Amino acid sequence: MQLSDLETPALVLDRGRVERNIARMRDHLSRLGVSLRPHVKTAKSIDVVRLALAGQPGGVTVSTLKEAEYFLAHGIRDILYAVGIAPNKLDHVAALRKQGADITVILDNVAAAQAVAAQGRARGMDIPALIEIDSDGHRSGVRPGAATLLEIGRVLDMERGAALRGVMTHAGDSYNCKSTAAILAMAEQERAAVVRCAADLKRAGLPCPVVSVGSTPTATYAENLDGVTEVRAGVYMFFDLVMAGLGVCRTDDIAVSVLATVIGHQPEKNWIITDAGWMALSRDRGTAKQWIDQGYGLVCDAQGCPIPDLIVADTNQEHGIIADRNGGAIDLARFPIGTLLRILPNHACATAAQHPCYNIVDGGVEVEAAWARFSGW
Amino acid sequence: MQLSDLETPALVLDRGRVERNIARMRDHLSRLGVSLRPHVKTAKSIDVVRLALAGQPGGVTVSTLKEAEYFLAHGIRDILYAVGIAPNKLDHVAALRKQGADITVILDNVAAAQAVAAQGRARGMDIPALIEIDSDGHRSGVRPGAATLLEIGRVLDMERGAALRGVMTHAGDSYNCKSTAAILAMAEQERAAVVRCAADLKRAGLPCPVVSVGSTPTATYAENLDGVTEVRAGVYMFFDLVMAGLGVCRTDDIAVSVLATVIGHQPEKNWIITDAGWMALSRDRGTAKQWIDQGYGLVCDAQGCPIPDLIVADTNQEHGIIADRNGGAIDLARFPIGTLLRILPNHACATAAQHPCYNIVDGGVEVEAAWARFSGW
Repeated sequence: MQLSDLETPALVLDRGRVERNIARMRDHLSRLGVSLRPHVKTAKSIDVVRLALAGQPGGVTVSTLKEAEYFLAHGIRDILYAVGIAPNKLDHVAALRKQGADITVILDNVAAAQAVAAQGRARGMDIPALIEIDSDGHRSGVRPGAATLLEIGRVLDMERGAALRGVMTHAGDSYNCKSTAAILAMAEQERAAVVRCAADLKRAGLPCPVVSVGSTPTATYAENLDGVTEVRAGVYMFFDLVMAGLGVCRTDDIAVSVLATVIGHQPEKNWIITDAGWMALSRDRGTAKQWIDQGYGLVCDAQGCPIPDLIVADTNQEHGIIADRNGGAIDLARFPIGTLLRILPNHACATAAQHPCYNIVDGGVEVEAAWARFSGW
Repeated sequence: MQLSDLETPALVLDRGRVERNIARMRDHLSRLGVSLRPHVKTAKSIDVVRLALAGQPGGVTVSTLKEAEYFLAHGIRDILYAVGIAPNKLDHVAALRKQGADITVILDNVAAAQAVAAQGRARGMDIPALIEIDSDGHRSGVRPGAATLLEIGRVLDMERGAALRGVMTHAGDSYNCKSTAAILAMAEQERAAVVRCAADLKRAGLPCPVVSVGSTPTATYAENLDGVTEVRAGVYMFFDLVMAGLGVCRTDDIAVSVLATVIGHQPEKNWIITDAGWMALSRDRGTAKQWIDQGYGLVCDAQGCPIPDLIVADTNQEHGIIADRNGGAIDLARFPIGTLLRILPNHACATAAQHPCYNIVDGGVEVEAAWARFSGW
């Protein structure tokens, strides 16, 4: 089967690029002496995650309990659920543990720690938890130095039904860095924050076997991970235009794209209209604040080669509007009705989430396989 | 079952509001003497569309062939596929016709008309098509007055395999209007454009039984639809913050919301952290350019009553950050860990698309039913 046999829009994944991206991260972290716990929230596919787990201890990071359930069903037991636990999910967490998942939750407050312990006691189990640390002020977590760290640690360690497994942080603000030097500094800030909290716990006589960090930018640029036991990252498997804009990858490392068909032209406006709108590309405009705004995506030919200066300038639900990024003229005769194009997305996680499967290619237009993926909770 | 029995995030739909929204549009268009062909791209649910079809001729508008397939399987045969047809979808269109769908395609260029005719000839059928008219310059369509209208009309009418069924337009630019007067003017511009093109076709001896317009804002404010045979609209069933910002509905008409749980606080920043991030709300920021920017959504209590000035100020994949819209202090003790909140979304189409089902309530927190919905192509 060829890409031209697919109905569009459709999600395309270049297997060779995925393998190279995974190998690069694996080799880099191996040099730094830490293991990788891949974040599966981008891929949501066992086929992709099997590639990512090669040479790693075998644990994964998830962003939903549906991911936990799916990967457990595919034999992966060591699971970190890396979103602050909501009390209404603890029944589900306990059920997953009964089914054999070694699932760890995260939290950043005493109330959640007490809810975890209460659930564990009611189920006759100890639910392990990491304390989330706020290393960059961008979202959740306990600030390094805050008294609440030890309060949470003591609840998890001392109350029956819970177990303190360590600390974790995610320097998500690395996505907003403006230079490689800034990412490198953020990686060190991320490491220092969590290592300091681990030391604070240990000084108070509390256990802290796990010291977990991770974001694709900081994982890529980190030069020293002393005191860290594992790194979490996910988007490195696919990469995207936001990562390319950060200098974390090159455009030709981006493994995921959306296949689209030309359905119209507006010659007076120099527009090409396609059938890949925001439903297929997602509404993500992550490059809007970067040096180069890629609109809703960078336009490539069917082989995946970028067409200079063509971007998806705007979208409706099932329409993409392609224009020259500088407003220049387009030779529309080069793109007749029915022409296949591929769009590199701003944000792989958001774009992949819109699709039920990956159509696998390896550098060309031959479709080797369809790998299922899932969405929802 | 109560909302508090659901795992979050989850999509909530208020049935009473849906019924009132549908009745209002039905009564308005009935006064104007035109029928409604509901656009099912927002709801993607037979349960919702059954409500919308009451008192209407029974045809629907779809944005994907998957919608066509689903609604055909639920007994709806009269289907307008309202995205310019791509040649790679014509096999599928022909197959749907063979299965009993009276499916009509749209197009705005001669090449697509010829592809339709070629497919129809190869399958021994006539595939009906509407010519898309560009009434507002915002996307696709033939400009009124352009010579290509009659060229396309002649291909569809004269070549075996195709049939000219009429004209259609969508004044999507109505979403960018800044006043009710501007929407009213846009409604007249939409009507005038398509009625003029219908007259041009008839003057040339070509048939034009269907004259179709539609967008929720123009359908809501139109005062005269002379010459129009049908109106298409979809988001009026649910409404959203973009529509409220346009004055097309009130906030308490919005029927769809996302149930979220408080999972943390950042007291120094006056932030409430929830488990409804952009995966649950979508990345849509449609109110960003309106008079009132609602962030990623307006925060309500579990009953659906807005909490003054609280909005989802930012999101990550599975995290929402709630803040006061003016940067004011929040009494975090009112929102302990585990508190349920409901978020009114910017854009119902985009938010609903992230979820596998609607949890149906009617003004309270009792869950009456779960109505399935679908996504993808």
